[in-house]
Amino acid sequence: MNKNNPLVVIVGAGFGGLQAAQSLANTAVEVVLIDRNNYHTFIPLLYQVATAQLAPEQVAVPIRSFFRGCSNVSFLQGEVGQIDFVAKLIQVEEQIISYDYLVLATGSRSQFYGIQGAKDIAFPLKTLSHAINLRHHLLHCFEQGERELDSEKREQLLTIAIVGGGATGVELAGALVELVTHNLQKDYPRLKPQDVTIILVQSSDRIFAEFPQSLGNYTAKKLRRLGVKVMLQSRVCQVSCDGFKLNDGTYLPAATVIWAVGIEGAIPRSFPFPQTGIKGKISVSSTLQLVDYPEVFAIGDVAKVPALSGVAPEALQQGVYVASAIKKQLQGKPLKPFKYFNKGRLAIIGCYSGIGEIGKLKLTGFFPWLFWLAVHLVYFPNWRNRLMILLAWLHNYIFRDRAMNLILSPSKLTRINKKVAPEILKIKR
Amino acid sequence: MNKNNPLVVIVGAGFGGLQAAQSLANTAVEVVLIDRNNYHTFIPLLYQVATAQLAPEQVAVPIRSFFRGCSNVSFLQGEVGQIDFVAKLIQVEEQIISYDYLVLATGSRSQFYGIQGAKDIAFPLKTLSHAINLRHHLLHCFEQGERELDSEKREQLLTIAIVGGGATGVELAGALVELVTHNLQKDYPRLKPQDVTIILVQSSDRIFAEFPQSLGNYTAKKLRRLGVKVMLQSRVCQVSCDGFKLNDGTYLPAATVIWAVGIEGAIPRSFPFPQTGIKGKISVSSTLQLVDYPEVFAIGDVAKVPALSGVAPEALQQGVYVASAIKKQLQGKPLKPFKYFNKGRLAIIGCYSGIGEIGKLKLTGFFPWLFWLAVHLVYFPNWRNRLMILLAWLHNYIFRDRAMNLILSPSKLTRINKKVAPEILKIKR
Repeated sequence: MNKNNPLVVIVGAGFGGLQAAQSLANTAVEVVLIDRNNYHTFIPLLYQVATAQLAPEQVAVPIRSFFRGCSNVSFLQGEVGQIDFVAKLIQVEEQIISYDYLVLATGSRSQFYGIQGAKDIAFPLKTLSHAINLRHHLLHCFEQGERELDSEKREQLLTIAIVGGGATGVELAGALVELVTHNLQKDYPRLKPQDVTIILVQSSDRIFAEFPQSLGNYTAKKLRRLGVKVMLQSRVCQVSCDGFKLNDGTYLPAATVIWAVGIEGAIPRSFPFPQTGIKGKISVSSTLQLVDYPEVFAIGDVAKVPALSGVAPEALQQGVYVASAIKKQLQGKPLKPFKYFNKGRLAIIGCYSGIGEIGKLKLTGFFPWLFWLAVHLVYFPNWRNRLMILLAWLHNYIFRDRAMNLILSPSKLTRINKKVAPEILKIKR
Repeated sequence: MNKNNPLVVIVGAGFGGLQAAQSLANTAVEVVLIDRNNYHTFIPLLYQVATAQLAPEQVAVPIRSFFRGCSNVSFLQGEVGQIDFVAKLIQVEEQIISYDYLVLATGSRSQFYGIQGAKDIAFPLKTLSHAINLRHHLLHCFEQGERELDSEKREQLLTIAIVGGGATGVELAGALVELVTHNLQKDYPRLKPQDVTIILVQSSDRIFAEFPQSLGNYTAKKLRRLGVKVMLQSRVCQVSCDGFKLNDGTYLPAATVIWAVGIEGAIPRSFPFPQTGIKGKISVSSTLQLVDYPEVFAIGDVAKVPALSGVAPEALQQGVYVASAIKKQLQGKPLKPFKYFNKGRLAIIGCYSGIGEIGKLKLTGFFPWLFWLAVHLVYFPNWRNRLMILLAWLHNYIFRDRAMNLILSPSKLTRINKKVAPEILKIKR
């Protein structure tokens, strides 16, 4: 550690923060990268962990492994506490660090809009732990559903509702269809694919609001053909252990409600922000700086940048930008505003289907599906996992076999079981 | 399910229970295999999960995957409750099953001998969850140890004590030496291998009591050369959050105490056993039957069989035996006593060293090490994991890189931190 070099503290090792640290590696600054976890999560593949396609270890990479042999970047695992912008101090658990530059890249978290039961009962899918919990819960529902003799209860156990028709919701719906169609009966001979109901609830009148209407229509049609109940213009107003309520009064029984809607900037509550924008995001200038503190940057999902939609390439480009902005500031050069270069967008539906928009080109079907997988493999940040993911996909698509079906923790389902009186059932004779 | 066939209920899908079910697959009996987990754990490789060499998914196989396309075996995930041996009824959560034959294969659990703090604070290594918890805790200690400025506290964080000089204790000690020597400094540049202290505590005067004295001596010498503090004739009499006490009054500070000694049969507490043997094992006849109930068998670690030492091949051979014994009983044929065929024993130390005893042949060094790895790969029950484990080992030994360094859950360490007043430290300037 060279104490004469300026110290850049980066909070959060998601796409933006990790990229910023990598862009500053082996330059004339000291970097301290802070994250509450010791791993970087490749969020776009979380839904494959939740649906038992990939192992948790395959979509997460230990942060320290990125900076081996790189002496100017150190990693600190911990929760960030208070920040003093005037004195340029940041607290990380028992330490207080005095920074020269600060990059806030804390990402986003689920927003539940105060809907009753949503926060406590629905399953979000923003972190690796969320994905593991959801996987365990789903497998647990299948285990319970197979042995359940009461048809109403069985139906409830085998109903999976997804709230939100954006990328996460659609990916999950498609992946669940794949799981149920190709894998379920192999392992649960008494469960038929049609026993499982998958519902996608979307508040607006279309799926994929960020894509052109025609692609949203294609997706809805495709999902319906795959057996997903797509409910448009429906709003969930209550989630309970055994189901959920729509705001037209309809009650639907479901043991699983997945929360794939609503995001707010994950600003630690202890941050004394001089300005906060809508949806809990941090307001930044066109150069991603806090207006009053030019040495503080905010990037990725936590920053409020107009016209961005919260995808990984945006955070990655902001990470590169912020690293060069710090170097320019050190050289006394002026900063140009951040500009996002949009290479196009892809979304996967599943079952060999996807959609894409590249410039004016609109794609649907097999090619955007394959392209999505290829792009995510290429963008995965290390070789080892890339190989492992490729092997898992090949195994999965060739043998139609998912090997990740382990239930490692007790499920929320126990709550449901406790509500009914234990029935003594006799199997055989 | 053919209701006319006799029903065999097998409790526990470890080596013995799983083998019994596999040997009864596609025969003229119905089999219900019960386990509290939905996966089979390959216990001999748990220590590699604990030391971040293998991923949890690599040493566990979903039980249902063994019985695909096999209509006479069904799996039931659940805890076993009461057994009525007279009425031949067994309770599994809300169900009561009426069996014709019952195979008890519930394995073993750690025995803490009532030593103060051992059960609550020390880390056992009997299940997959134990291995994952221990991995998280160890990595957490490295994270905290690297940033700790107080040298006494740092030493405590980086001291790992292993209680028990049997196979698990030695394997762990060797694997920890590998981890600390080859991997630690790559990820934690401020930690030197010699900063970490590994202690192996054994109550008797030798390591590996079940092997000939010379092999035990070789192991102790080898471990000492690798830097492990081997303490013979030492008994732990108290474990606390910050260390442990020996019965000669010595207190040693250590953030990690691993419990690798003491095993008792894992007899569910609700079982009304007509007879129980020493160490909580079930007394069985030479044909592995309960004396008063010839339709009930006990196999593996839960059964008290003289001259057996609790290794996987014993349980596997008992699984095969019990399947054929049931078939013979159905045909009215008499049973011959169970005889264990001992092919030899191997144990791994680590760092390219192992020991072995095959007939009168005693082996030490590289070949038993390699042989151990090969045998465990061959005995692994499915192809997919076998390939994954081989790849992980090759990756690990060629690149000296462990990819499983994720901390997925909070560590017990927080208890230690809460005990000290938070110190405000300033790094830099």
